[in-house]
Amino acid sequence: MFIAMNRFRVAKGREDAFAAVWQNRDSHLNEVPGFVEFHLLRGPAEDDHTLFASHTIWASHEAFRNWTKSQAFRDAHKNAGGHSDLYLEAPRFEGFEVVQTVK
Amino acid sequence: MFIAMNRFRVAKGREDAFAAVWQNRDSHLNEVPGFVEFHLLRGPAEDDHTLFASHTIWASHEAFRNWTKSQAFRDAHKNAGGHSDLYLEAPRFEGFEVVQTVK
Repeated sequence: MFIAMNRFRVAKGREDAFAAVWQNRDSHLNEVPGFVEFHLLRGPAEDDHTLFASHTIWASHEAFRNWTKSQAFRDAHKNAGGHSDLYLEAPRFEGFEVVQTVK
Repeated sequence: MFIAMNRFRVAKGREDAFAAVWQNRDSHLNEVPGFVEFHLLRGPAEDDHTLFASHTIWASHEAFRNWTKSQAFRDAHKNAGGHSDLYLEAPRFEGFEVVQTVK
C-alpha cells in the first residue's frame, strides 16, 4: 500500500474556497486501476496559513506511478494552476510506503 | 474522521532499527474506543535523514483526544524517549480533520 500526499499552505481566510475547489473537481479517480481512497485533510492553523493535505491511498507505488503517466492524471490537473492564489507556495509532494499496519 | 500523524526524521542507516521499534511495540491501540487503523509510513529519503510518519486513523478528533488522556496512552509512550538516537530531532505532530472523501 502506498499513500500519496500533497501539502498545501493555504492562505488565511481562503480555507473554504480551497476546499470547494476539491469538492467541485471531477477527478474520475475511482475509475483508475489501483486507486483505493482519497481524502482531503485539514491540518493545523499556523500564523500565516492553514495546512491542508490531499491524501490518496493506492494499492501500490506502481499503481500511483502509472496514474501519473495517464491521460486521467493530465485531465485531473489541467486547471491546477488556476487556483494558485489560494495557497502561499507550490504544493509539496510526499509519497509514503506502508511498512506496518495495526487494525 | 481524524488522522493523527507524527513525523520523524530518521538518521540514515537507522531506518530498519526505527521500524523494528514500532513492530515490537505493544500499543494495545485496537482496544481503544474510536481507534480505526494504524500505519507506520516510510517517506522520502533526504540528504541527512529518511522521513517516517506514524499515521493513525480515529473515528473523531474527540476519540483521539480521549486516548491522549488515558492510561493506555501513557503506557504506549513510557519508553518513547529510549530510542531518540534513531532520529535527528523530536517528532513533529500534525492532526488532520477529513473534509472530503472519494472512494
